[in-house]
Amino acid sequence: MNVTLNAKFIAEMLGTMVLVLMGCGSAVIAGADGTTGVGLLGIAFAFGLSVVSMAYAIGHISGCHINPAISISMVVAGRMKAKEALIYIVAQVIGAIIGAGVLYLIFSNHPGFEMKPWALGANGWGTGYLGEYNTTAAFVAEFIFTFIFLLVILGSTSTKNINGGFAGLAIGLSLTLIHIVGIKVTGVSVNPARSIGPAVFAGGEALSQLWLFLVAPVLGGIAAAFIHGFLIENPKNFTE
Amino acid sequence: MNVTLNAKFIAEMLGTMVLVLMGCGSAVIAGADGTTGVGLLGIAFAFGLSVVSMAYAIGHISGCHINPAISISMVVAGRMKAKEALIYIVAQVIGAIIGAGVLYLIFSNHPGFEMKPWALGANGWGTGYLGEYNTTAAFVAEFIFTFIFLLVILGSTSTKNINGGFAGLAIGLSLTLIHIVGIKVTGVSVNPARSIGPAVFAGGEALSQLWLFLVAPVLGGIAAAFIHGFLIENPKNFTE
Amino acid sequence: MNVTLNAKFIAEMLGTMVLVLMGCGSAVIAGADGTTGVGLLGIAFAFGLSVVSMAYAIGHISGCHINPAISISMVVAGRMKAKEALIYIVAQVIGAIIGAGVLYLIFSNHPGFEMKPWALGANGWGTGYLGEYNTTAAFVAEFIFTFIFLLVILGSTSTKNINGGFAGLAIGLSLTLIHIVGIKVTGVSVNPARSIGPAVFAGGEALSQLWLFLVAPVLGGIAAAFIHGFLIENPKNFTE
Amino acid sequence: MNVTLNAKFIAEMLGTMVLVLMGCGSAVIAGADGTTGVGLLGIAFAFGLSVVSMAYAIGHISGCHINPAISISMVVAGRMKAKEALIYIVAQVIGAIIGAGVLYLIFSNHPGFEMKPWALGANGWGTGYLGEYNTTAAFVAEFIFTFIFLLVILGSTSTKNINGGFAGLAIGLSLTLIHIVGIKVTGVSVNPARSIGPAVFAGGEALSQLWLFLVAPVLGGIAAAFIHGFLIENPKNFTE
Repeated sequence: MNVTLNAKFIAEMLGTMVLVLMGCGSAVIAGADGTTGVGLLGIAFAFGLSVVSMAYAIGHISGCHINPAISISMVVAGRMKAKEALIYIVAQVIGAIIGAGVLYLIFSNHPGFEMKPWALGANGWGTGYLGEYNTTAAFVAEFIFTFIFLLVILGSTSTKNINGGFAGLAIGLSLTLIHIVGIKVTGVSVNPARSIGPAVFAGGEALSQLWLFLVAPVLGGIAAAFIHGFLIENPKNFTE
Repeated sequence: MNVTLNAKFIAEMLGTMVLVLMGCGSAVIAGADGTTGVGLLGIAFAFGLSVVSMAYAIGHISGCHINPAISISMVVAGRMKAKEALIYIVAQVIGAIIGAGVLYLIFSNHPGFEMKPWALGANGWGTGYLGEYNTTAAFVAEFIFTFIFLLVILGSTSTKNINGGFAGLAIGLSLTLIHIVGIKVTGVSVNPARSIGPAVFAGGEALSQLWLFLVAPVLGGIAAAFIHGFLIENPKNFTE
Repeated sequence: MNVTLNAKFIAEMLGTMVLVLMGCGSAVIAGADGTTGVGLLGIAFAFGLSVVSMAYAIGHISGCHINPAISISMVVAGRMKAKEALIYIVAQVIGAIIGAGVLYLIFSNHPGFEMKPWALGANGWGTGYLGEYNTTAAFVAEFIFTFIFLLVILGSTSTKNINGGFAGLAIGLSLTLIHIVGIKVTGVSVNPARSIGPAVFAGGEALSQLWLFLVAPVLGGIAAAFIHGFLIENPKNFTE
Repeated sequence: MNVTLNAKFIAEMLGTMVLVLMGCGSAVIAGADGTTGVGLLGIAFAFGLSVVSMAYAIGHISGCHINPAISISMVVAGRMKAKEALIYIVAQVIGAIIGAGVLYLIFSNHPGFEMKPWALGANGWGTGYLGEYNTTAAFVAEFIFTFIFLLVILGSTSTKNINGGFAGLAIGLSLTLIHIVGIKVTGVSVNPARSIGPAVFAGGEALSQLWLFLVAPVLGGIAAAFIHGFLIENPKNFTE
């Protein structure tokens, strides 16, 4: 472990902790009701601004992936070595669990606290979960949303893009966009680590439904790497 | 078709797909009610952040028009050839229809689904449509909103503008602005492709009212090209 | 008139038209109720994003003042000649009246239209106006808000500021901030032209209260020019 | 006093005045209800946009700390001398009290005014305060939120970060993020000066609970300086 305990590891761990604590925290502490809480729009901004904040805080250290689907997509796109991605993913999952733990510590210290199904902002779908969308909708949504997310990431951080400084803003605000649209479907994951964190504490349905949030985002990210690489960034590979 | 199936085509197609899926998706999935949904403000941010995201993702590939009114205005402004604009528009319309189709696929997989008039975020006006504004209001609004939108686009992307890197933010946030003001009038199009996508699936009124969203935005965009070109960017042409 | 009908004049006129049409339009068309409309927050973003949009659209042409209090403050700060400021102010007032007129044209074409007191987003205070603040509160608020607004403008556009590209964002978002806080006090003017536009159509109280929105913002802007010039930007003038 | 009455002092004083007047003002004047007021999300944007605005207005003068926890953290991080930090802190506290005073002046001039417990946006916790979180939650929240805030500040303003121009946006938006999550716990301080301002006028509980908002943010800021310095920015210090 010592060899991986470097700045990138710490940065990815802290960044993912922030994403889970603040993103899920906005739903759990502040609330999805638009009159008394921050509403769905507030939650969407919490997730997106977590990424904006950390992108400019640790982007120059680790690239600020804070999401295994991104690290895997970067490997497929040839921008990162698999070994380093593995270390990133370990840091991200640890950070996500710490983030959910700190959220539990704060949230459990108020009157009327109880752990409901899908507690602490866990992702899910089906009967009892927000819009009660079915498994097909959940899978399609997580796949296409992660695909879009990675299109933004791969394009805005491309070395051919002269406006690279804006990537942190564009990526973070694209995560806000995805949450604006998708919270009622799955709570929006597009990030296996973000789903693992709360699920570890929530258990039950959150754990048994975790597979979809590991599979669909990773597949969406891989699809984006191929489409972006072959059809957009290097079209000659395709049209020859 | 092969000759046009290059990176620009793919970029414009995917970009317009994102705009329709996410913009219209925010209204259809998340909802226009500010207490239980994302509200009109959330919908306005969804449309605007779709443009911010894609501007930094594909701006360096195709310029990220994702809107036939923009491509036509660019031709009038002498910044693009008509032939290329035509290819752009085909890609935009295909992308818009795909976006509406993916939205249908997700939205139809939840309890109580039904296709109402102007379904899937279709544009419209008159009795039964949001604020029930009449045809005059709808036409004036779409014309002036597209005129303003293109003023921002033509000015912020001008080669004389040293802050060109901010164009993606300014353009996207101006689309948010236009939606904040205008959703109750027409749902806001300012983009023929964005109107075509949902209308193909919604049929009925959405199809029979489609003409206004083809004509008014294009005229507004052309007017902006003239005003910007003769009165703002090259005033000597005018005051001589 | 011919000599002033140049690009700067057109830019300031169109920019102020956009500010009034879109800022006031968000309140009039979309509504201040957070459940069925865009809410106070939506209105605040409309005014701010009007400035963000136009700053990057016409900033390189005219500096995008679109506000007489700014042009006068710039004269006091020694950054602009009085004669040019006068031309700017004429353009701004004309643009504001056109903006309110276009808003009237759209808004009057929906069912149940009527002109209420302080119609079309006119500024005001006292019995019957939002939070019913008194004249002292209204004057202090308009003075201090314009003072803050000009501190942001003078500082962010200073030639000593290396992040000048961000000025449009900072200035626009500071106008959003001011509206978030102050709508219930006066509807927020900080801009004589923005107050004149709707008042011309609304008449009544809106016209008789117009004096405050001409005096307080201009005084606040002049105060900011002195404080910024003598105490912040060139402290040696003061501490010698 | 003469020797410290320089531009930095004025800038920090005015900046903190703006933060308290506008941040607290959004809650006090505009209201935390999302239907009739700006809602929790509006308050969160008010605090964050105060920082964005002032960062680009006075960042080139004083660095725009406007927060004693930041100045102390900068001393620990070796980026500022203790003596200068002391002067900054005096300016910040004076500015915060002026800001709360101006807010009182405006707010007291409307019908039905009365000073309730924790008036003028004072921070607090426990029975009668928003979510009624207990002291443990309040302390943990203020510590971890300030820790995160300083991670963003130290990282985004690092000389190793090539996107330093975006620091003002990232830092301000991270304060919005923190308020989206934490208002119901403590009203969110992460800034001793911001807590002192309203408490001076509100008295009672706001004063007796002030200690937590002096201690927890400062400790969180110091922790961030150590973690950032030893584990992220200069990892060799740690892993050797």
